[in-house]
Amino acid sequence: MKFVGFGEIMVRLAPDGYLRFPQVDHFNINYTGAEANMCVSLSYMGMDTEFVTRLPENDIADCAMRKMAMYGVDTSHVVRGGDRIGLYYLERGASQRPSKVIYDRKHTAISEARPEDFDWDEIFRDADWFHFTGITVPLGPRLGEICRQACVAAKEHGVKVSCDLNYRKALWTPEQAQQVMRPLMPYVDVLIANEEDAEKVLGVKAPDTDITAGKLSPEGYEQVARQLTEAYGFSAVGITMRGSISASVNEWSGLLYTGGKCYRSPKYTIQLVDRVGGGDSFASGLIYGFLHEFDAQKTLDFAVAASCLKQSIEYDFNLSTVEEVFRLMGGDGSGRVQR
Amino acid sequence: MKFVGFGEIMVRLAPDGYLRFPQVDHFNINYTGAEANMCVSLSYMGMDTEFVTRLPENDIADCAMRKMAMYGVDTSHVVRGGDRIGLYYLERGASQRPSKVIYDRKHTAISEARPEDFDWDEIFRDADWFHFTGITVPLGPRLGEICRQACVAAKEHGVKVSCDLNYRKALWTPEQAQQVMRPLMPYVDVLIANEEDAEKVLGVKAPDTDITAGKLSPEGYEQVARQLTEAYGFSAVGITMRGSISASVNEWSGLLYTGGKCYRSPKYTIQLVDRVGGGDSFASGLIYGFLHEFDAQKTLDFAVAASCLKQSIEYDFNLSTVEEVFRLMGGDGSGRVQR
Amino acid sequence: MKFVGFGEIMVRLAPDGYLRFPQVDHFNINYTGAEANMCVSLSYMGMDTEFVTRLPENDIADCAMRKMAMYGVDTSHVVRGGDRIGLYYLERGASQRPSKVIYDRKHTAISEARPEDFDWDEIFRDADWFHFTGITVPLGPRLGEICRQACVAAKEHGVKVSCDLNYRKALWTPEQAQQVMRPLMPYVDVLIANEEDAEKVLGVKAPDTDITAGKLSPEGYEQVARQLTEAYGFSAVGITMRGSISASVNEWSGLLYTGGKCYRSPKYTIQLVDRVGGGDSFASGLIYGFLHEFDAQKTLDFAVAASCLKQSIEYDFNLSTVEEVFRLMGGDGSGRVQR
Amino acid sequence: MKFVGFGEIMVRLAPDGYLRFPQVDHFNINYTGAEANMCVSLSYMGMDTEFVTRLPENDIADCAMRKMAMYGVDTSHVVRGGDRIGLYYLERGASQRPSKVIYDRKHTAISEARPEDFDWDEIFRDADWFHFTGITVPLGPRLGEICRQACVAAKEHGVKVSCDLNYRKALWTPEQAQQVMRPLMPYVDVLIANEEDAEKVLGVKAPDTDITAGKLSPEGYEQVARQLTEAYGFSAVGITMRGSISASVNEWSGLLYTGGKCYRSPKYTIQLVDRVGGGDSFASGLIYGFLHEFDAQKTLDFAVAASCLKQSIEYDFNLSTVEEVFRLMGGDGSGRVQR
Amino acid sequence: MKFVGFGEIMVRLAPDGYLRFPQVDHFNINYTGAEANMCVSLSYMGMDTEFVTRLPENDIADCAMRKMAMYGVDTSHVVRGGDRIGLYYLERGASQRPSKVIYDRKHTAISEARPEDFDWDEIFRDADWFHFTGITVPLGPRLGEICRQACVAAKEHGVKVSCDLNYRKALWTPEQAQQVMRPLMPYVDVLIANEEDAEKVLGVKAPDTDITAGKLSPEGYEQVARQLTEAYGFSAVGITMRGSISASVNEWSGLLYTGGKCYRSPKYTIQLVDRVGGGDSFASGLIYGFLHEFDAQKTLDFAVAASCLKQSIEYDFNLSTVEEVFRLMGGDGSGRVQR
Amino acid sequence: MKFVGFGEIMVRLAPDGYLRFPQVDHFNINYTGAEANMCVSLSYMGMDTEFVTRLPENDIADCAMRKMAMYGVDTSHVVRGGDRIGLYYLERGASQRPSKVIYDRKHTAISEARPEDFDWDEIFRDADWFHFTGITVPLGPRLGEICRQACVAAKEHGVKVSCDLNYRKALWTPEQAQQVMRPLMPYVDVLIANEEDAEKVLGVKAPDTDITAGKLSPEGYEQVARQLTEAYGFSAVGITMRGSISASVNEWSGLLYTGGKCYRSPKYTIQLVDRVGGGDSFASGLIYGFLHEFDAQKTLDFAVAASCLKQSIEYDFNLSTVEEVFRLMGGDGSGRVQR
Repeated sequence: MKFVGFGEIMVRLAPDGYLRFPQVDHFNINYTGAEANMCVSLSYMGMDTEFVTRLPENDIADCAMRKMAMYGVDTSHVVRGGDRIGLYYLERGASQRPSKVIYDRKHTAISEARPEDFDWDEIFRDADWFHFTGITVPLGPRLGEICRQACVAAKEHGVKVSCDLNYRKALWTPEQAQQVMRPLMPYVDVLIANEEDAEKVLGVKAPDTDITAGKLSPEGYEQVARQLTEAYGFSAVGITMRGSISASVNEWSGLLYTGGKCYRSPKYTIQLVDRVGGGDSFASGLIYGFLHEFDAQKTLDFAVAASCLKQSIEYDFNLSTVEEVFRLMGGDGSGRVQR
Repeated sequence: MKFVGFGEIMVRLAPDGYLRFPQVDHFNINYTGAEANMCVSLSYMGMDTEFVTRLPENDIADCAMRKMAMYGVDTSHVVRGGDRIGLYYLERGASQRPSKVIYDRKHTAISEARPEDFDWDEIFRDADWFHFTGITVPLGPRLGEICRQACVAAKEHGVKVSCDLNYRKALWTPEQAQQVMRPLMPYVDVLIANEEDAEKVLGVKAPDTDITAGKLSPEGYEQVARQLTEAYGFSAVGITMRGSISASVNEWSGLLYTGGKCYRSPKYTIQLVDRVGGGDSFASGLIYGFLHEFDAQKTLDFAVAASCLKQSIEYDFNLSTVEEVFRLMGGDGSGRVQR
Repeated sequence: MKFVGFGEIMVRLAPDGYLRFPQVDHFNINYTGAEANMCVSLSYMGMDTEFVTRLPENDIADCAMRKMAMYGVDTSHVVRGGDRIGLYYLERGASQRPSKVIYDRKHTAISEARPEDFDWDEIFRDADWFHFTGITVPLGPRLGEICRQACVAAKEHGVKVSCDLNYRKALWTPEQAQQVMRPLMPYVDVLIANEEDAEKVLGVKAPDTDITAGKLSPEGYEQVARQLTEAYGFSAVGITMRGSISASVNEWSGLLYTGGKCYRSPKYTIQLVDRVGGGDSFASGLIYGFLHEFDAQKTLDFAVAASCLKQSIEYDFNLSTVEEVFRLMGGDGSGRVQR
Repeated sequence: MKFVGFGEIMVRLAPDGYLRFPQVDHFNINYTGAEANMCVSLSYMGMDTEFVTRLPENDIADCAMRKMAMYGVDTSHVVRGGDRIGLYYLERGASQRPSKVIYDRKHTAISEARPEDFDWDEIFRDADWFHFTGITVPLGPRLGEICRQACVAAKEHGVKVSCDLNYRKALWTPEQAQQVMRPLMPYVDVLIANEEDAEKVLGVKAPDTDITAGKLSPEGYEQVARQLTEAYGFSAVGITMRGSISASVNEWSGLLYTGGKCYRSPKYTIQLVDRVGGGDSFASGLIYGFLHEFDAQKTLDFAVAASCLKQSIEYDFNLSTVEEVFRLMGGDGSGRVQR
Repeated sequence: MKFVGFGEIMVRLAPDGYLRFPQVDHFNINYTGAEANMCVSLSYMGMDTEFVTRLPENDIADCAMRKMAMYGVDTSHVVRGGDRIGLYYLERGASQRPSKVIYDRKHTAISEARPEDFDWDEIFRDADWFHFTGITVPLGPRLGEICRQACVAAKEHGVKVSCDLNYRKALWTPEQAQQVMRPLMPYVDVLIANEEDAEKVLGVKAPDTDITAGKLSPEGYEQVARQLTEAYGFSAVGITMRGSISASVNEWSGLLYTGGKCYRSPKYTIQLVDRVGGGDSFASGLIYGFLHEFDAQKTLDFAVAASCLKQSIEYDFNLSTVEEVFRLMGGDGSGRVQR
Repeated sequence: MKFVGFGEIMVRLAPDGYLRFPQVDHFNINYTGAEANMCVSLSYMGMDTEFVTRLPENDIADCAMRKMAMYGVDTSHVVRGGDRIGLYYLERGASQRPSKVIYDRKHTAISEARPEDFDWDEIFRDADWFHFTGITVPLGPRLGEICRQACVAAKEHGVKVSCDLNYRKALWTPEQAQQVMRPLMPYVDVLIANEEDAEKVLGVKAPDTDITAGKLSPEGYEQVARQLTEAYGFSAVGITMRGSISASVNEWSGLLYTGGKCYRSPKYTIQLVDRVGGGDSFASGLIYGFLHEFDAQKTLDFAVAASCLKQSIEYDFNLSTVEEVFRLMGGDGSGRVQR
């Protein structure tokens, strides 16, 4: 079974531990992007995956591709051209101090991609699933059209389509997001969102929710999922719910609305190692479950357990095996040494 | 508005993470001292600051001054001379294991400072606030007199004076402290203390308090603040209250007694990154509030929030902006990523 | 007073912090082994100790011996020969993700040791206590016999014998363990075990216990200790109880059965720095207490406090002084800075 | 005496030691740019300096400014705005393997600067010297005009002007360079160039020179300097000559043409630590000499010795004191320990 | 064009810089082996490559395979099984102090490989070249037979065969080597050897050579190459000549005997970064030249230049591009910065 | 055979690689002192050694003692007391930039030592050789007397005495040195000196020598050695000669005057890793040779080869085995890998 992700891969530059930017003389680097993270996660779980993007011809972009290759992700349809690979600086928060991200992702190779760069018929030849996110679409003026063409081709090839709304206020306004994303929704089989995405990107709001204050209402989200399904005909909607107790400890759970029913996962209390990539690993988990024909509850529980583990792992890739996810689902969150 | 601090700046040598001394082959270094930390904190919040001290003529002392300059602190009245810059070794505790400090701060340049080294009329020309602490006074035989002269000059220039009692048993006994510090109190406008300082340095004890056992009574501290105010005529007394659950998790709050009333802050539960410098950043926060004419409650809440953030930051400087402090005061301690 | 430990010392290779194996390009190294850890712990507490093992003639094995020497452990009866020093790779877990160990300890020098390598009469000349563990016995075909000879010699020299059952499923099955370990028990004065050891190694099970689910019954363990005492005539049985809340936070307590009575320790909640070596430091603490003729409750409390501190310390050695253990026993787990 | 530099400051990201890009998971960072390097070098030698640039409003740009402040450089006229601070990746060469630079410096804040951003009358109020380079001019469409206005203002304020041609083929072609740079030359008092700059930027070629083959003819350079002086009326022309024996060992010398005479320096054989910034520190040395009214030979020797020392120092700033330069000029290149 | 290498891949553990074993608390790790190094080198030059070995089922072996994958090497026919991946400790020498290697490579998965583990017909389906070395053969009792079967299959598939003699005295005696290696020589098209290999492995000695004293006679080597060719009918024999001036500086050149003629390369003086892997990269260079039908002189010069560059690169892989090798062959060893 | 050294052991704090002080945020630490270095070197060569000093009661001093113990040095007569362990900051030079040392070694425990602290009869019970240096004597007002008493006791116990003059201008003037050191010379059997020591400490100058200019005359040194022998009756005088080509490359040789004859060693060209401790390892080599009754030439050659190797090793201890020294003496300075 083969998964195809399309989007950006960036350089992430981050100080060690909890150091703030002015305190450091070196940055740890890794390569990340929502869809790239998902390719690695699914590849680590044993699936065939391919990541499609546009990258400049230089050693740093080569490094990003090598890192994908290291985890078994096929990069043979990556288009080379343009000037820059995007990057962002991440300062990790702790306790009451939030993490901080500084983006430098304009004028990148992917932002200047054109529809003719990608031969989707070729790319989808052996594919089973296609995924894109609401981060990728606003990166450049032609990315909405590229995603649309990919969706059309996916449908022609019998490839399932999923989309993680993933709203980023640094990239566009809710109005811009809704204008571009709504027309793409009819192609989407499985929708993934976190607490605020549905409202910002599709205009559907959970009642009685205040994220900053940590107030989350699963009932409200169920309503949101139902409304979304009715509006766009998704076969499933997955939603993550993060309770941010502090920058060091979070609660984490999810729900899945499918077949007219709403399933809820257990809630994990996580002592965070690295929360970035949590949503991507949830989406990967759902897709893994759907492709392996788990039932709805098992699919959701798998996705939540997988993304719980991710947050105990440094950097954005979820280096968790299927066996490790099942062990946690089976109730072993005790962290005893595996000898 | 310009803040002037007078005191010592030292080299701090500390192993990585939670390693104990015999386990390490390198030390992280930074430069620290109660008043120096406050200069950096206030400078980071946008104020003009100056740090006054005495340092030897060598590259390591230069490094300490450069680090001040990096954060915008004026060091133009630092006196050069003597043999040594002080230093201390810090081993960070965790869970039930306490942090450990080994001082090597005798015979330093500052300990041998003489009154004629400092021209306070010159130093206070554009100043608005002067601060010294109970750590600085016992460093050398002439430092009490130097602080007294500074206080007198401050009063002449209309400069407000604050003092953080900051008792250190490695430097003197309570008897010695009381003998030297009491005569300085009449010059002080704003007094800052933690739980045990008032008793050790000024002989005023909070009833029903046992710090090691983590037993803290806000009511007792209010009484202490009132007694202190009556005895010395302070315009305000700020007290920090630390509940040491373990070396990894602390509770943190404060109270402010001013105008005959006692104000209390919210209490934060902090997953500690580095607790050293917490009191200094509380003092900085109070001074920032007073100079910006916040009301009493806002001043206290600002100081407690600022010093809460400090403890999520490595090393002794509080690299928190005013905006970050306000965000926490506004209730956002969720630690969500700031993109 | 002199303690002698016999067993393996290995190279431990571990990524920094919480990184997983594929993410690293360097490993932190240290040298470890159950009995070696105990020698260091007891040496750090001021006792004379000697560690006996077999190691190859190469620089890496020399490093292991130098590290012992650094902490004052006598290694003058270490036998040199064979090809390899054992090693293991340790990946540290966090939150719901367990730690992971990969052993590479076959064909080592110690595994090929023969009885004639060790002159126990010589080794025990000034000794007071001998300790071996259930990790050492299965390492090679002749290690059971070697341990038996050591026990016999110990008895002749009036040396007390203790054994930590320390079952490792990677080394043998319960059946194999019981066959070899049971005949050694009559020589043992003090038995040490964790929750699952007694069942696996000696076939005695605590009722109503499910370790993975974190379910521990002190009453059950008391029963186990009584049964063991009746079966083998131990003068004391010490048992550790670990409540694995997560890979980041554990509960920790112990019980001691001696003189027909069962003593229980306070329970500590530990924010883990490094949990490996916890059991070894408990055993060391018991032995320290017995040799210094603490009463039973004090002996147990000392052992539990010592092993609680260990888990706030990186690597497997318990670098805690007697004074630090007493301070924690005295109730100071607040982690306030020791200046 | 005050020096003003105008140009770009960038983030430099470089692997440790001699590692190539695909081998690393972290980068060392520092902040650099030709004119910024010169400000730091001259500040380290005790001069007043100011660096003028345009930088975005974010923490990383703040870090660049703090690093300048740490070395005493005034940044009070830095204009804030735009999206990006430039950056480049540097891989250090060794032996036969050359160092490699990957630029990511398009669309930066400085590249979008406009003439009205800078109030040169204000900036030059207390200034004695102004410097710009041929790297800055091609960064954006309006930078030639900005430099011209700065030159005009400098002349009005009696401020000396120097320019380092510093040709970078990644930024423009020789044709473009000549078209923009030639009209600026009449404002320039002191011209600085390396072996290939004069030809590329001003069209004047040293006969019989092949840089790659390491063939350098001082006589040819003298001729170039004379021609340049005749064409543009420079009061002095300084040229560096690098003999690249390998990426690990270089020869280094310079010449100065002034008052119709040509002066030559000794030639140093340098075991390179970091060759980047060598030219900048030569230019700084010349300016230091001119401002302190050294005679021509001493000025040249000072500049060459200073830039020789720079190449034994990591990163691009020349952290050499005047005393250290004089010691080397005095013949002590023995590297004996200074206790 | 596809290259297949068969051999061992090991963990290499090395202190930072020039530190000796007792001085370190961490090791840098990478994965290496003669044939694996060659696969990476040729893959980095743009060729298809496959590496065949046997590795245990554990995370560390997975890491070795991921590292291969990162550089594009196909590992799809790697056989999984056995207990151990081999490892060695490397201490880097400097000046008069030699580098030191401690092997721990017995009982590894590859050493226990059996002929039936490998389906050479499948492996060679699209292959053009097969390579093995004299390091692989002595690793286990059946490896000579495995190599023989691979050679036979290679011949049947029209795949060229090369062998690097690579004598290691830690693995076997000259007598053992000659007995096993001689029968394999008739299958070999291209033989590669360093100064001492031909004598030790095939019994052919260069007259007048004393390697330790740095005495190398190209004439002698020519004679050796001729003798070898006459004895075994090689189409080409490549020999590297290392002049060990010290552990920090080496001379490096090679010769190629083919078609009855002997070609000599230029001699490079190398300031060593990491000399390990020099011979492997020479062999890779020869194979690259032969497969791309360079003429004999160009093939040799390419191989020597490539392996010269390798020695300026950390670790054992030659991360040099074809373009970089050509640039050095073209005479640019000046190490000037490539911007 | 047992060697006893008496002197200071200090903390050495040094940046990584070639970084200058203002560039670093961490220091590498090790523990060093002339006589301590010699104890470690001789212990590493297999001898019994003991180091005598006075150290304060704190963890950092404990670390220094543990490091000695790690290398097998007996520290059982170290006296504990006083406030401080000395320290110095070392910045490593390169090429034309010299290394730089900043001492902070006043008011240390050893500087306040008193004669009654040391029971030399006890210390020398099993000793064969006693060594002290001209660094130790000026550390405090009573150290000359302590050394004198040690010398007297040594003579009574038939223990040989050696002294390395080791002049440090930071500690005293030549006049002071001569006044104190001359009376100690009659007790000394073997005198060790570098180029400038004899002149500064004993007033005997080599003609025609200019160290800074790298001008060294072996003939002159022979004359010095003869004069010294005639004046004080030394049985042997060893002198090191360092030719400082640069901070990266040195020449190194020695001479030994004994029995009325002068022996000269080969001269090594060293690519320096760490030159500090070179003289100490020369002295250790001489003592090793004398105690093992090597003839004069072999003793000298051993000492020079040993100290050559030291300078390829980081930090001040000479971690070279006797076998390694003999290999270099035998002519193998080629640095080929020892597998």
